[in-house]
Parts: sequence; C-alpha cells; structure tokens
Amino acid sequence: MPETVSTRTEEDLLGQLEVPSHAYYGIQTLRAVQNFKLSGVPLAHFPNFVIALAMVKHAAADANHELGYLTTCKHQAITHACQRIMQGEFHDQFVVDMIQGGAGTSTNMNANEVIANVALEYLGCEKGDYKQVNPNNDVNMAQSTNDSYPTAIRLGLLLGHDKLLQSLENLIAAFRVKAQAFEHVLKMGRTQLQDAVPMTLGQEFQAFATTLEEDLCRLRTLVPELLCEVNLGGTAIGTGINADPSYQRLAVERLAAISGHPVKSAVDLIEATSDMGDFVLFSGMLKRTAVKLSKICNDLRLLSSGPRTGINEINLPARQPGSSIMPGKVNPVIPEAVNQVAFEIIGNDLTLTMAAEAGQLQLNVMEPIIAYKMFDSIRLLQRSMDMLRELCIDDITANENHCLHLVEHSIGLVTALNPYIGYQNSTRIAKKALESGRGILELVREEKLLEDDVLDDILKPQNMIAPRLVPVNS
Amino acid sequence: MPETVSTRTEEDLLGQLEVPSHAYYGIQTLRAVQNFKLSGVPLAHFPNFVIALAMVKHAAADANHELGYLTTCKHQAITHACQRIMQGEFHDQFVVDMIQGGAGTSTNMNANEVIANVALEYLGCEKGDYKQVNPNNDVNMAQSTNDSYPTAIRLGLLLGHDKLLQSLENLIAAFRVKAQAFEHVLKMGRTQLQDAVPMTLGQEFQAFATTLEEDLCRLRTLVPELLCEVNLGGTAIGTGINADPSYQRLAVERLAAISGHPVKSAVDLIEATSDMGDFVLFSGMLKRTAVKLSKICNDLRLLSSGPRTGINEINLPARQPGSSIMPGKVNPVIPEAVNQVAFEIIGNDLTLTMAAEAGQLQLNVMEPIIAYKMFDSIRLLQRSMDMLRELCIDDITANENHCLHLVEHSIGLVTALNPYIGYQNSTRIAKKALESGRGILELVREEKLLEDDVLDDILKPQNMIAPRLVPVNS
Amino acid sequence: MPETVSTRTEEDLLGQLEVPSHAYYGIQTLRAVQNFKLSGVPLAHFPNFVIALAMVKHAAADANHELGYLTTCKHQAITHACQRIMQGEFHDQFVVDMIQGGAGTSTNMNANEVIANVALEYLGCEKGDYKQVNPNNDVNMAQSTNDSYPTAIRLGLLLGHDKLLQSLENLIAAFRVKAQAFEHVLKMGRTQLQDAVPMTLGQEFQAFATTLEEDLCRLRTLVPELLCEVNLGGTAIGTGINADPSYQRLAVERLAAISGHPVKSAVDLIEATSDMGDFVLFSGMLKRTAVKLSKICNDLRLLSSGPRTGINEINLPARQPGSSIMPGKVNPVIPEAVNQVAFEIIGNDLTLTMAAEAGQLQLNVMEPIIAYKMFDSIRLLQRSMDMLRELCIDDITANENHCLHLVEHSIGLVTALNPYIGYQNSTRIAKKALESGRGILELVREEKLLEDDVLDDILKPQNMIAPRLVPVNS
Amino acid sequence: MPETVSTRTEEDLLGQLEVPSHAYYGIQTLRAVQNFKLSGVPLAHFPNFVIALAMVKHAAADANHELGYLTTCKHQAITHACQRIMQGEFHDQFVVDMIQGGAGTSTNMNANEVIANVALEYLGCEKGDYKQVNPNNDVNMAQSTNDSYPTAIRLGLLLGHDKLLQSLENLIAAFRVKAQAFEHVLKMGRTQLQDAVPMTLGQEFQAFATTLEEDLCRLRTLVPELLCEVNLGGTAIGTGINADPSYQRLAVERLAAISGHPVKSAVDLIEATSDMGDFVLFSGMLKRTAVKLSKICNDLRLLSSGPRTGINEINLPARQPGSSIMPGKVNPVIPEAVNQVAFEIIGNDLTLTMAAEAGQLQLNVMEPIIAYKMFDSIRLLQRSMDMLRELCIDDITANENHCLHLVEHSIGLVTALNPYIGYQNSTRIAKKALESGRGILELVREEKLLEDDVLDDILKPQNMIAPRLVPVNS
Repeated sequence: MPETVSTRTEEDLLGQLEVPSHAYYGIQTLRAVQNFKLSGVPLAHFPNFVIALAMVKHAAADANHELGYLTTCKHQAITHACQRIMQGEFHDQFVVDMIQGGAGTSTNMNANEVIANVALEYLGCEKGDYKQVNPNNDVNMAQSTNDSYPTAIRLGLLLGHDKLLQSLENLIAAFRVKAQAFEHVLKMGRTQLQDAVPMTLGQEFQAFATTLEEDLCRLRTLVPELLCEVNLGGTAIGTGINADPSYQRLAVERLAAISGHPVKSAVDLIEATSDMGDFVLFSGMLKRTAVKLSKICNDLRLLSSGPRTGINEINLPARQPGSSIMPGKVNPVIPEAVNQVAFEIIGNDLTLTMAAEAGQLQLNVMEPIIAYKMFDSIRLLQRSMDMLRELCIDDITANENHCLHLVEHSIGLVTALNPYIGYQNSTRIAKKALESGRGILELVREEKLLEDDVLDDILKPQNMIAPRLVPVNS
Repeated sequence: MPETVSTRTEEDLLGQLEVPSHAYYGIQTLRAVQNFKLSGVPLAHFPNFVIALAMVKHAAADANHELGYLTTCKHQAITHACQRIMQGEFHDQFVVDMIQGGAGTSTNMNANEVIANVALEYLGCEKGDYKQVNPNNDVNMAQSTNDSYPTAIRLGLLLGHDKLLQSLENLIAAFRVKAQAFEHVLKMGRTQLQDAVPMTLGQEFQAFATTLEEDLCRLRTLVPELLCEVNLGGTAIGTGINADPSYQRLAVERLAAISGHPVKSAVDLIEATSDMGDFVLFSGMLKRTAVKLSKICNDLRLLSSGPRTGINEINLPARQPGSSIMPGKVNPVIPEAVNQVAFEIIGNDLTLTMAAEAGQLQLNVMEPIIAYKMFDSIRLLQRSMDMLRELCIDDITANENHCLHLVEHSIGLVTALNPYIGYQNSTRIAKKALESGRGILELVREEKLLEDDVLDDILKPQNMIAPRLVPVNS
Repeated sequence: MPETVSTRTEEDLLGQLEVPSHAYYGIQTLRAVQNFKLSGVPLAHFPNFVIALAMVKHAAADANHELGYLTTCKHQAITHACQRIMQGEFHDQFVVDMIQGGAGTSTNMNANEVIANVALEYLGCEKGDYKQVNPNNDVNMAQSTNDSYPTAIRLGLLLGHDKLLQSLENLIAAFRVKAQAFEHVLKMGRTQLQDAVPMTLGQEFQAFATTLEEDLCRLRTLVPELLCEVNLGGTAIGTGINADPSYQRLAVERLAAISGHPVKSAVDLIEATSDMGDFVLFSGMLKRTAVKLSKICNDLRLLSSGPRTGINEINLPARQPGSSIMPGKVNPVIPEAVNQVAFEIIGNDLTLTMAAEAGQLQLNVMEPIIAYKMFDSIRLLQRSMDMLRELCIDDITANENHCLHLVEHSIGLVTALNPYIGYQNSTRIAKKALESGRGILELVREEKLLEDDVLDDILKPQNMIAPRLVPVNS
Repeated sequence: MPETVSTRTEEDLLGQLEVPSHAYYGIQTLRAVQNFKLSGVPLAHFPNFVIALAMVKHAAADANHELGYLTTCKHQAITHACQRIMQGEFHDQFVVDMIQGGAGTSTNMNANEVIANVALEYLGCEKGDYKQVNPNNDVNMAQSTNDSYPTAIRLGLLLGHDKLLQSLENLIAAFRVKAQAFEHVLKMGRTQLQDAVPMTLGQEFQAFATTLEEDLCRLRTLVPELLCEVNLGGTAIGTGINADPSYQRLAVERLAAISGHPVKSAVDLIEATSDMGDFVLFSGMLKRTAVKLSKICNDLRLLSSGPRTGINEINLPARQPGSSIMPGKVNPVIPEAVNQVAFEIIGNDLTLTMAAEAGQLQLNVMEPIIAYKMFDSIRLLQRSMDMLRELCIDDITANENHCLHLVEHSIGLVTALNPYIGYQNSTRIAKKALESGRGILELVREEKLLEDDVLDDILKPQNMIAPRLVPVNS
C-alpha cells in the first residue's frame, strides 16, 4: 500500500489495522488478505458465489427482523446493501483468496463487512462506524460461518446451474445438427482401432449427442437434489445454539423466496454442517461429463487425423495457423484444449475428494478449497463446451467420398457378407484380400460368390447399419 | 503343466494347443491365460460376474431358439449348462485374469467354451467336440463380446447390489443403536479441532447414521437407473449387424426374466456400446461412501485417542494386542483398516476414470479393468462395512464422566452463556479461564454473574443442544 | 473491444484481424485469446516462463546470426527486445491463456509477435510492419514450437528453482530453531493416536526439519538433472529438419550463456520432443513435499487442539479472530490453508499425469496444461511454505507444564519401567491405572516396586528419549 | 474351519483361541485373519516381503545374541527358522491380509509366530510351547513393529529391484533390436495427429528405447538411495527406548551382511519411523514408467491401426482370434493390457499418496496399504513389461512399402522442399495438393519447380531425417 492512500483505523480481538478509506471491506478481510496470498484467485472471480453470500445475509436479516432481533432501520440498510451486491455492485470488494484457512470465516466476514459498510453509507454514516451497523452483531446475527458459508456455496452453485445446463444443451443440439447432416455418410466403424463394420457418420455424431444427453438429464435432476438442502440456522455445529427456535425455518423460507430456488432445511443439521458428500458426488458427475467430452475430442482428433497419413473422415474448421515451419498444417486446437480442461476437472475432483475426506468431527475446515474447485470446474466445463460448439462442432464437414472409399476397401465389409457366403468363405476372402491388397467386393465379384444385385442389396447403407432379417440357409 | 496331465487338442485361427482333458474351458481361454499373467485375480473371484455371464448366454440362447436359429436340442444343452453355472458350479473354470486385452473377448470366450463343454457333456459328447455344440456359432450366436460383455458387467453388479445395500443398512442400524444409547451423554463439539459448543454423543453418532443413510438412499435409486440399460443385441458396434431384427428385444426380455432384474434395452445402442459413463458415476458414488467412512473412522480414532493423552471420549473394543513393546496398548485397528480400504476405493476410482477416458471410437477396450475395479471396490466396501460394524461399532462404549468433565472445563461453554452475560463478559471470562487454567462455571459463579438456578437451567443438556428462546434483554 | 480503440490490421493464413494499435502482440496472439477463454490465467502470471521464452528467442537469434542467416541489424533489434522482456518489461503483453490447444504454438507466437514489435519499435518502424522484422521468419527462425516451447518451460522452471529451495530452506531453519527451543520439553509420543512412549517436543520438531531437509536435498540435485536437457534445435519432430547442422549446438550454448543455467542438448531429440517424463517426476517430487507438509500441518493442528478438550501441547499464534459466535476461539488457520494447498498440488499432479499419458506419436499436445500445473504447483508450494513459516512456525510456543503433566499421567510410561519391573508387573500396573484412573508412578511408588532414586533415574528425560543400557536381570 | 481339524490352544492378552495344530502361525496371526477379511491378498503373495521379514528377524537375533540377551540355543533355533523362510519354505504360513489395521503389527506377529514355531520344531519342542521360544520376548526382542516392519518393506523392495530392472532392460533391448531392423524404413512423423515431416521407423522405435532407458538409469540410482536407509533399532517411535545402545548399529550391520544390500541406519530415527516420503517418490517414479509405457502402447495401437482404414504402418503379432463375429480381425490385445496395467499403477499411486498423507504424529498407521501398493505396482509393471516384450515387440514387422507410400503422398513433404522452392510456392503447392487430392512431388515435377536430380537428392531418407546444410538463396 503506498503511503498516500488514506486509511481508517479498525480494530478486532487481535488489535488494530489501517484499512484503506475507500474500501468497503474491513479489518478481518484485510487480515485474511494478508494471511492468505496463495492462489491469487479472489472471491470476486465467482460472481454467483458473491451473490449467494448476499442472499444468505438478506434472508438472515429478514428472519431476525421478523423475530424482533433486528431493528427496522438496520434491516432496511442491510437488505439494501445485499440487494446492490445481488445486482452486481461491490463485487470487487470481495478480495479474499479462494484458498483460505478458517473454514470460510474470512469469506463470511468479507461479506459481513462489505454489507455493513454499504449499509452504513446508506444510513449516511461513515464506513467503519460499526456501532451503527455491526458486521458481527447485526449482519452476522444468529449465524455462524459454519452454517452461512456452506449454504452460500450451495446456493451459488444452484445460481449458475441453468447456465451450465444451457451450454451442455447447446452442445448437444450442435451434435444433433451434424448427426442429421451426416445421416447418409456411410463409413467404417472401428473397434480396438481395427476396421470393424459399417455405420454412418450420422450415427457416430448422434452417439455423441446421446451420451451428453444422458449427462444433461442426470445433471438436471441430480444437482437440485444434492444442493437444495441447506444447514442455515444450525449455527456453530448444527445444534442451533443461541438461535431463536423459529429462526431456522424463517431464514430458509426467506432464502427460497429471495433466490427463487427451492432450498429447504436439512433434516439432520449436525450431519449437514460437516458433510461434503454432495459436493463429492456433484464433482464426480462433472468428472463424468469431462471424461465423455475428452473421449469425444479424442475421437474428433482421430477422425480428422491426416490429411494424408491419417483417417481423414472429417474436417475440423481451421482456427489458427498450425505451424510456422510446416506450410499448410492446420491442427485440431479446439478439441486439444477441451482435453486439457477435462484433465483439469479430473484433477480438481481429486483435490476436492481429499478435502472432503479431511473433515474432522463437527466441521470440514477444507470447505474453501471444495468451493473453489466446484466453481472452477463448472466454469471450465461450461466455457470449454461453448468453445467446442462455436469454434469446432458447428463447422465440421465430412469427407464423404473418402469415407465411402474406406468402406469399400475395408476388410471389415466381409462381416456383412458373412451370413450370405458363410464363415469359411468369408475368412478365406478376408485373408486373400489382406495378402493381395485387393478389395473384398472385387474378390467376391471375381469369384462370383454372389449375384451383383444381391451384393448391391447387402451393401446398401440402410441394410448394413441396422439389424436385418438374414436368410437362414444362405 | 506337468507332463503327465492328459490333454485334448483344440484348434483356432492361430493354430493348435493342448488343453487339459479335465478342463471345461478351451483353447481361446488357454491362450488368454498364457497371454495375460498380470493381476493374478481370475474371473472366478467375482461369482456374480460369472453368474451374470451365464445369464446373458442363457437369454441369448432362448432368443435364438425362439427365432428358430438354435435347435431345441442345442438350446436345452446350453441352457442346462448356464443354469448349473448360475447355481455356482464350474466357477473354477473361469480362469482368465481380470486384466486382459481384447475388450473382454477372452472373458466372453471363457464363458462360451465352458458352457459349450458342459453342454457337450450333457449331450453325452466328448469335451472339445465342437461340431455338436460350438462355443462361437452356438453359444455366442448373434452376440459380440461388445454387447454381451458389458451387459454381463452391468448385470453382475446388479446381482450384488442388494448385499451391498444390506451391509450399509446394517451399519447404519448399528450407528443408530449407539445414537440412542449415547442420547444422554453430554460432550463438547469441536470445530477446527478447537473446543466449540456442547452436543450429545448421541447426536454425533446419529450424524454418522444420517450421512450414511443419504448414501443408502442414493445408491438404492441411482444404481438401477445406471445399470439397467443394456446393449445386448447391438452386436459389434451397436448397429445390430448380422442379428435378427427381433433378436434384441427377445434377448433383453429373457434376460430380465432370468435375472429378476428389470434390464431394458438402451435407446442408442451405438452410444451404449462404448460409453462407460455409468460406471464412472457409480464408482464416483462408491468413492463418496468411502470418503464418508474414512471421515467417520478418523473421528472414531480421534474420539478414542489416549487413553490419557488424547480425547478419550469413547472406547473402541480391543480386537488384538496392540504392541509387544508397550504393555496394555490397544489400537483402533478396525477403523485403521477401513481408512485403507477407502484409499483403495479412491485409487480404484482413478484407475477406472482413466480407463473410461481411454475409449476410442466405437468401443472402450479398457472395459476389463473397469469391470475389475467396480467389482473390487464393491467387495472391499461391503467387507469393510461388515467388519466395522461387527468388530467395532457394536461394542463401542462411552466415557460419560470424562465427556462431562470436558464440557464443564471447556472454554466453549461460555458460548452458551453469551446471550445471558453478554459478549464482553463472555470474552473476559474466557480469557481469564484460559490464563488461570480455571473453569468457566467456577469463574461465573465466583463473580456471581448468574444465579445458580439460572446457570443450572442454561447448562441442562436439553437446553444446550438445540435452539432455545433466549431473553432479548439479558 | 470498445469502438474507440484504434487498431492496425494484421493478416495471417486464415485472413485479417484488427489488432489494438497499442498492442505489441499480433494477430496470432489475438486469435488465441479469442479461441481460448478458459482458465483466465494468462502467461503473464508466470514471469519466469515469459523470461525463459525471451531467453530462448535470444539464443536462437544469436545462433542464426552467427551462422549468417540473420542480419546484424535484425539480430540487434531482436536481442534488444528479448533483453527488455528478460528485465521484466512487456510481460503484460503475454496474454494467451495457459490452457490452450496447439501444443504451445500460441504461446510461441505470442513471444514471437511481442519480440518482433518491440524490435520494430527499436528500429524506428511501425508495429505490425513485419516486412522489416517478421515474427515467423526472423524471430522464430530455425525453430518450431515443438522445440522452443518445451525448452522454455524447462528453463522457466530452472529460473524459479532457487527461490523454491530458499523458501524450503527457510522453513527448515524455522523448524530447527523450534527444535532447539523445545529441546527440554518432555512429552508423550503417540502412535496410532494412542499414548506410546516419551520423547521431547524438540525431537518432534527436529523430525519436521529432517523430513523437509531430505526433500531439499532431493530437489536440489534431482531438478537440474531433470530439466537441463533441452530439445532446442530439434525443430518439428526432433530430426532437425530445415535447421543448419551447426544450429543446434550453437543455440544451446548460447542459451546456457544467457540463462546462466547449464542447459545442454538432449541425446535423442526425437524422444525429447514428445517425452514429458521429467515433468511427471518433478511433479511427483512436489507431491511428496506437499504430502509431508500436509502431514506436518495435521500434526500441528492435533498438537494445538483444545485448548481444554484436545491435546494442547503447543500454541499456534492467533492470526485472525476465530468465530463471531464463540468468544475467545482461535483457529489454526495457517496450517489449514497449507493442507488445502497440498490437496491442490496433488490434484495438479493428477492433471499433469493424465496430460503426460495423452501424448501421441511425435508430440505431446497437452504440454500447455503440463506447463501450467508445474508453474502453479511450484508457486503454491513456495507461497504456502513462506506463509507457514512467517505466520505460524516462528511464533509457536509450548505448554511445557501440560506436556509434563501428560507424561506423568500417561499409561505409556510403563514401557520405560518394563525392563525394571518386568512385563507381568507392567501389564498389571497398566491395567490398574486404567481402571482406577490413577497414575503409573503413583502406583509403582505405592507398591514400592522401585526405589525412588531408581525411579527418578529412569524417568530423567535424557534417559527416556534414547537407547539406554538396561540391566539384563532387572 | 471344519470340526475335524485338530487344534492347539493359544492365549494372548485378549484370551484364548484354537489354532490348527498344523499351523506354524499362532493366535495373533489367527486374530488378524479373523479381523481383516478384505483384499483376499495374503502376505504370501509377495515372497520378497516374506523373505525380508525373515532377514530382519535374523539380523535382530544376531545382534541380540552378540549383546548377550539371547542364548546361543535360541539364537541357533531362530536363525535356522529364518534361513528356511529365506529359502522359500513356510511362505504359505504368512496368511494375514495385506490390508490390515495396526500399522503392520499383525504382519510382524505373523513372522514372529511362524519363526518361533519353526524354531520350536527345530529344538524338538511342540508348536505353541512358547516358554521355550517366545514370539514376542525372543523373536521380537528389542524390536517394535514400528521399526522392523518398515525395514522389511524397504528390504523386500530392494530384493526385487534387480528383477524389475532386468525386465525393463530386456524391453529396452527389444526396442533397440527393432530400431535397428527398421533403420531404413522411411515414414511420416506426425504431430497433433497431423502429417508433419519424414523420419524413419527406426528413429521412432529408438525413441521408445531411449525414453525407457532414462527410467532404467533413474530407477537404478534412485531406488537404493531411497530404500537403503532403515529405522531398525528405533523401536516404538525412534527414540530406541528399551534397546541396548549398541543394538541398532549391530542389527543394521547384520542386516546388510545377511541381505547383501547396503542398508544403513537412518540419521533421524524419529523422522524415519513415520516418514513415507521415500515410497511416495518411488511410486511416483513407477507412475512415470507406467505413463511412458502407456504412451508407447497407445502409439503401437495407432501405428498398427487398420489394416485398411487406419495407419497400418506396422503389424503386431496375432496373439488370439479377435472376434467371433468379424472374420479375420486381429486386435492389439497385448498393448491394450499394458494400458490397463498403467492405469492400475497410477491408481495405486493415488492410494499410496493418500495413505502417506494420513500419517499422524509418531507413526503412519497406513503403512500396510503402502506396502501392498508398492509390491503390487512393481509386480504388475514387471509382468506387463515381460508380456509386452515377449508377446508383442519381438515380433513386430513393418509395412515398409505402405510407409513409403504415405510419405510420398503426404502434404508434409512440402516442408522438406520449403528451403528450395520458398514458403510461398510451398504453401500454394500444399493447397493445390489438398484440393486436388494429388501428390506434392507430382505437382512439383509438373510445374518443373525443381530438377529431378535435385528433388531426388532432397528426398533421400538420409537427407530428410536429420539437419542439413540448406542453400541460403534457394
């Protein structure tokens, strides 16, 4: 801090510090900033989390006001402050590092202090004049970090969920468009990277859509189930000590109303205070989607490999020059970036898993990194899906002729002839084709094993890419 | 193989091998045994998997018979063989290593060969007389490894699911019994390993029950959703090539009837052939349970630490002498073993995740290790839960007096007094207690801050462990 | 980009884009910024990486100039630009996301473009006037991303290595200071969280120092071994195609001179182009240090647990108020933050491992995330060690009397008496102590099993915390 | 245990149990077997571990005898028993599960009991007559599980290390043989799965050899450094309590002599008792080798993909029929199995890492699973390398003509012409080739851009696969 910054003096149990005059945060936030210089990623990087914190504080203030513990004046000022944060103001005041000790106390206090000072300004008081509106006694009234912080994490994740689903849905739609466009492109399917049997490129892209659709459904139903149960009102360890018996119900009701999400009280608040299982499963589900995206991108890179010495069935759009040394080279940079995001999400899942396992007794003090990794994985997943769709999938084209050429020259074609010419003939023809370098059809025609019209019929795309009534005797 | 073992000669595309005469498996199984000497864990180690393979073969034979492709005689012989395997016979003939290349082909052929030879015996033929009943043409009719193998994995997991749920349910019940037994044991709750506020030991054990109950519910509903969709009938890549159009429906119907599980056909068979997402999520769910068990066991070890220099609130039953060098030492060996099992399950989840990500194009060739890790994690989880319940939870006792002593001497008690004597008094008393080593109550009494009856009322367990209407003015 | 920003037009193979006039980066950087909006972490976040890129470009320009391919004028301009970047200028122009497709091409081009434009300015030309100094033909001359990018990663890691070692060394020194300060504090050792045998708190802190010292030694010797072999000069795939036969040797020599690090050419450049093994092992080593730090912080949290209901042998300095609801509570926030950093580093290691495994044929396209995770883990590790030392270790104090009290009341004391009173007596006394709640010494004295002076002698700290000649007959 | 098995009664602190008369293990082993029914993998599965346990007991007995604590008669009997176990006898008596609570106490007692009973038999006494030779007092004399168990783990790993190195060395040699055989096979290199520039297949296989050679060197030097420091003599927590001051030195000297490995005493025995860092780094190194093997196997599968619709540059030997439904299909089953082993080793590394992190205070109670995963990973790695070499690498052949064909038709060839025809011509030709489907050479010849002899000279393999003096003016 340069000398010339004007400051105000604040005080807490540990002593005094100089807080910049313009800051809405206070001394406890400042301590946290000084203590935790770690990831360099402040709370402000995740706006939904900041908004959720404000919503929780708003709901608590409403409940406390209704129960007569908070004056109308203070209530008005506090909720005014919360609403401005909910609308996107003051997010730059949420400066604490996402990685922090204290189980979220610093995040909670950052919210309490910003809200208190915005409220003070609203009331025409000076920032830091905590006798009028106190971050602890008023803003944090009837709360503990241990109930308000996890509640805000859950709500923050819920607030961003629709956007995640939307990105996934858009990506699925893009794959479906391509599935339709490639409906008539016959190609060889491959198992174990070896030529297998024919299919259409449309079927292949439809399978990409289908597999992601399963995740869309799962995410849509699973996540609200996981996140809607909150422990707000449990205070320090879930026993609700020092809270009014009516407070919990009221606060949760208000939170549902304010947020528009059907949050409800957890059944066992002591369990809910320390349990991170919901995040473990949500992250496991994100990992599943990441695994699928990575597999799809691996496939896209394989199918577009070449152009001459690879598979070359599809073309990915060029997004940047590929090489300064190799003229004309264009690389699958978008899928490559998605692969890396997937690895990051899988790594995040491990970090989160270890943090969840490290909970002890009535609290999990590793919550901050759990929150960080959840928000980070979701953001990465969403951004990478948007990127994949806009910059890659939408502009993929098929090399239809090359696909057909590969089918016609494939040994795998013999599988379709199997029921007609018999397994022994098939094996002999396959072997002959491999050794001579000639095509299956060519050899079958040469040996007159099947009439041309029968052969044509067998080899019609619609007849090779689905089950078919096969003559038992042939 | 010693010289004296009598053998029969079998032949496949790669040539001839000598198969032990007594063996029900055949040449392809033998090749796999010789190829894959890796984990040392044969298929036989997972009986449900073997049974599921037999059920799939049974269902396929039924469908093929009904469609007229399999004679009544062969059908009878094959289904007889399947039933004997389903009843637990011939499991020792499933000798292929769980880790294998070929995407499960060796497992599939192991099943085909054993069934063929049992069927041959039933028909009065010699083992190996495959002209009568052929492992490929008859037992594997209309199937590919790529549809029958993943179907068997799913079914095998379904077959063991009730037992897993039962072990979990029993463990929950054991925690609940203790929760009731410890209902009146007042103790200090701890957050961040620091003294927090009072609770009962019953509440603590109830939270263990609750958290596992959530997993029970989740596993009960999620797993059938994940596993019941099978790709049987999709053949090589899901297009159903070379299969009768009616085969798929019939085979799946028969499989549901035979297994008693509501398996149904996947909507997109091409997607279903290569997708491992269901296993990723199931494993992620097992990981969540493992994380919870590990956290619980960490807590049990902490709560029983000491006896003199630790927390010592509970006693775990002694299961073995703890030390040859330290007389009288008894260690928490059962929770320690559960922790290790949890780490193993988390490691398995990673192995499985990487295998799932490694799928390419129309198949995931890493399925064998996915199957292995799924069956292994489930078995470990179940065994460790039984062990934990029988050898630990059931016999835990509480050191009630010590718990109470800790409450009475805790600084955390001041939190309960906070609403009555005010935050300033509370902080002063807390500081004084810490510095002098004296008790909060003692100091409050000494300073006559509260009447004895008020104090007694505040400190009644039922008043400290739940929300309470606090006088606004006190 | 707001309307009012003035721009210049640049062109590449894919067409034209408007680049902000003030920008030193060019069109290819801009494409990358538009393509990869993922982590939000630009190259500029890791100054050593940016400096290393400039050093590589400097070395290549030197070699190209010496071989006669680069004019003296261009050479002067380019190396001038490199030096300014090496001195910390223009870092804000390295704007590409650390996660990117293209195997680092965008990072390489970001460096090429910034250097070209700084060089142009030096020559009195307009930015973007690439006919004078061309990012590809001049700055990237004789290079491929595939050799210059991994070389820069390695060098960037080497540049930061001393600082990492310094932080580790400082932390070790802090533990050693405490080891000496606590040399005479007798306490109980614990195994399996159960009372074991006496030791000193100094021994415990010395063990923290020792275990980290092993890592210091290992990091000091291992890392240069891993990182000093570079593939600069291998061009596209390590065959050195299109490079002058003398170029490689010269460029690497110049890089060593410029950087002050003894980089040398890899023996097999084809292998070196795609191999990520060195990063896997380096990250594995960072993981090991993270594991040790996490274990140490777990111990610190355990040893400072309480104050009344935990172990309470040491006091961690208070760094922030612990709770708004619980007066006087102070939490071990610094070790908690270190634990979370450790989990992050372990997650990073997994991400990196998967990326390393995903290399294909002549290149590993996942290098960008490997670089990202390496730089991130090192920065987190270093920051967390500084934090741990400054804000925690330096101010730890011991509760010497409480430690002694625990020793005197511990059952584990009986182990020290074992050789004198026999195993049977020991076991009996231990049992009696446990049941009665009385002390071992008290009981031994009561039963007059040992003379007081003998007992005193046995129980002298120096006699209990090291091997001792024990009377065979006693 | 069926009724008819005759038993003997043994007793420990917890009471009596019936041990089968034929068993050499005793009551504590039996308790452990009954307690820990988890992995199903007994100690006996890892013979080197069993041998190492016997060596440790032998060394301790020697030291105790020399110091006068163990009679000559007992010493003779105990060391006789140890030697028989070292020679491979009685391994089936090591029946405890590798996963166990108690930090290895059960393993240690299993060894103590088997040795005691073999010693008793040698002395002509009945099994179980522990007054003559006692598992605790005599066999375990001056030891704690906490020093003898980790010492045995380290030694067991050292005992198997040469075999691991040998398998790795053999595999490297096999790759080198192929590198030489394929020295003249010109092929296209690929980066990002796109056609890059020419190289030889020999260079590609040499790179496989090189990358593994780096691991061979690293493993050869690193592992003895990591494992040779043992904590034998530290007893319970490393303070050496109850051990003779000379015991430690003597026991370690004897262990070095008996094992032939240069084991030496750790400098800080307290640190060494709980530190698992050496295993973390060793496992990290095994992970690195696994990652490399997996990458190589991915490459082998890619290079042999097809035969018609893939890359098809090499042929892997057929090891088993590939498909019952697809005639003639042969799959890369051996590399596929290696991939899965690699995933398992990476999963093991995670399990081990979490176990290492879970150590607390003076001991890491998770050592049993650390030992298990170390031995398991090494065995899997070694077996998979032998399999890969024998059943795959040794019989790989090249499709030389196809490789050449791909080079001649590749767009990437234009890079080699770049310095001669200029970047503009190159780009134009590349584009024309791509659009027309024609070859680069054909177009260059058609346009007479280069004389035929110049073109021939450029395209000589030896000129394309290494740096070359390029005319500056062309």
